[in-house]
Amino acid sequence: MSQDVGVGGERTANVIGAGLMGGSVGMALRAQGWTVYGSDRDEMAEQRGVERGAFNAVGMCETATLTFVCTPVLVAAAVALDALRHGGVVTDIGSVKAPIVEAVGHPRFVGGHPMAGSELDGIDGSDADMFQGRTWVLTPTERTDTDAYALLHAVVTSFGALVVSVPPQQHDRLVATVSHVPHLAAASLMSVAADGALEHSTLLRLAGGGFRDMTRIAAGHPTIWLDICETNRDAIVSGMDELINDLGRMREVVATGDRDRLRTLLQRAREARINLPVGAPPAEELVEVRVPIPDRPGFIAEVSTLASQLGVNIYDVEISHSSEGGGVLVAVIAQTASDLLRGGLIARGFKMSVAPLGLA
Amino acid sequence: MSQDVGVGGERTANVIGAGLMGGSVGMALRAQGWTVYGSDRDEMAEQRGVERGAFNAVGMCETATLTFVCTPVLVAAAVALDALRHGGVVTDIGSVKAPIVEAVGHPRFVGGHPMAGSELDGIDGSDADMFQGRTWVLTPTERTDTDAYALLHAVVTSFGALVVSVPPQQHDRLVATVSHVPHLAAASLMSVAADGALEHSTLLRLAGGGFRDMTRIAAGHPTIWLDICETNRDAIVSGMDELINDLGRMREVVATGDRDRLRTLLQRAREARINLPVGAPPAEELVEVRVPIPDRPGFIAEVSTLASQLGVNIYDVEISHSSEGGGVLVAVIAQTASDLLRGGLIARGFKMSVAPLGLA
Repeated sequence: MSQDVGVGGERTANVIGAGLMGGSVGMALRAQGWTVYGSDRDEMAEQRGVERGAFNAVGMCETATLTFVCTPVLVAAAVALDALRHGGVVTDIGSVKAPIVEAVGHPRFVGGHPMAGSELDGIDGSDADMFQGRTWVLTPTERTDTDAYALLHAVVTSFGALVVSVPPQQHDRLVATVSHVPHLAAASLMSVAADGALEHSTLLRLAGGGFRDMTRIAAGHPTIWLDICETNRDAIVSGMDELINDLGRMREVVATGDRDRLRTLLQRAREARINLPVGAPPAEELVEVRVPIPDRPGFIAEVSTLASQLGVNIYDVEISHSSEGGGVLVAVIAQTASDLLRGGLIARGFKMSVAPLGLA
Repeated sequence: MSQDVGVGGERTANVIGAGLMGGSVGMALRAQGWTVYGSDRDEMAEQRGVERGAFNAVGMCETATLTFVCTPVLVAAAVALDALRHGGVVTDIGSVKAPIVEAVGHPRFVGGHPMAGSELDGIDGSDADMFQGRTWVLTPTERTDTDAYALLHAVVTSFGALVVSVPPQQHDRLVATVSHVPHLAAASLMSVAADGALEHSTLLRLAGGGFRDMTRIAAGHPTIWLDICETNRDAIVSGMDELINDLGRMREVVATGDRDRLRTLLQRAREARINLPVGAPPAEELVEVRVPIPDRPGFIAEVSTLASQLGVNIYDVEISHSSEGGGVLVAVIAQTASDLLRGGLIARGFKMSVAPLGLA
């Protein structure tokens, strides 16, 4: 399906921002045969992007099908608005979504957030495979254009990423819990350890693989986290409160030697960790779901976020336009999830048909 | 040097406890040419140990040079005392040291703790390379026999581990900070995330690589942690308090939008993480240090913990006995650290000479 996404065959994209993520997006696009124009306020970074093969050329193409805004989160909305003056679909990769999506508010803009990264800084850490097997969040709203969403979904899926669609506000609460708060916790763990062993830093050799894993993200550049903490402040503070409360409970259980309760807490965490979802099922367990697109706005946001909230992952999505002007959304989901999605869609007044993959 | 450690050429060892660690110790010993006898209360685990190549045979050899007690921490002291009825050096691999070392209190017992593990349970997760590049703590005391320590140091080093020697109580405080508290924090992070996404578990796909890294250790079997929390309770509670306080400070900095202070906190954690010590320097940067062994107890604990406290890593150690009855401790350290160690040794009334590696 990834061979068809270039509208009018013009598989040309812009990447604005030549950092770690912009470089990786450029490389991933080029690996899929796109022609990529890259730009950055830093001319050295632009040039390095071309040298590293992330961009075909420096600059911006006004007729590009797709523009990725890969700037710092604080300027993403302004850069996206500027890019929307031309045609094409525009998306960003910022770690916080609601403020950006609200500020842009355009049908051809779909907020995005690849849940991937590296402790390396800058374009030299870029990697075409950075998104392979990772989750890429899209945050369509009731204003989002269906074709814009479908194009972006297909491109991101072609990078090997798994798309999850959620409303922007819910995204911000969730990433506070699974990314922003853990990052601050990693920094805290590292600080406490460094304090305790300050005079004898070699004693930090006692830090085993688990500690290294837990604190690896604390080695990242602080600047991005300052912006994130500024833009997603409320969700982060509330997530910190939850973590501090939970740690306080755990501390009491250890202090009072309540072995049974401690076992319950650890067992529960263990099960949740083991059940952390990963990867896609094999093709024979997938089906194509077809939903006629009604003539009203908000369709794509409603269907895609419904699926994510039902725990139904959409592995691929495509819009099939009929010559009479109507259209059908074709989504690839797991066979086992089709009854669940059908129930949710029918409850919302949609029709849906299911067929084995490739036979529809 | 690892070819010479078998006293009288009898490179025979016992491993008591056929779990993840016992199996890995057995495999690492066999990779170095040892004959390994393995035992466990669970006959199936013993047999599996032989099948997997961790043990040459089931049972215990009474004339073994070395016995590794790889049982749960709560029974390690009793098992070690039993093993000490025969000759040979006895060590354990428990995550808490002071209670065990105090309970055993024997010159031929050296407490040990490899800072390595796996989220896999049981002997099937065992791996001969588990200790490669990892830290292995030894906790000699003033009663510890010098030869016993040197033998164990050489064997553990032959597994590819880096030895750090600290007093048992200091070990327990440090591992609370870099292992036990982080483990409980991982469980808390996982619980909070699971709570927040309970109805929509697929949304946990938003958990990126950083979150997966941070919570991986929470997938381990809870039982070992119940024992650890019981035996190292005070240090863990105090470490939890430090972490909760630090997180509270961080939360305030985010809530008040104090960007400069947040940058300072994150920058400090970043530097500490980047400076986490790893690996050994190349051989040409190493020297051999020779210290004549005085005729009084406590020598090995004093020198080895002095080195660790000065931040001087001992990469290898050997005891050279002279025919007149005296002996010399030969330690391999980094050239750059030799002045530091000399100062510390002289201050404690020891003599020391330094020579390039292999030329002494």
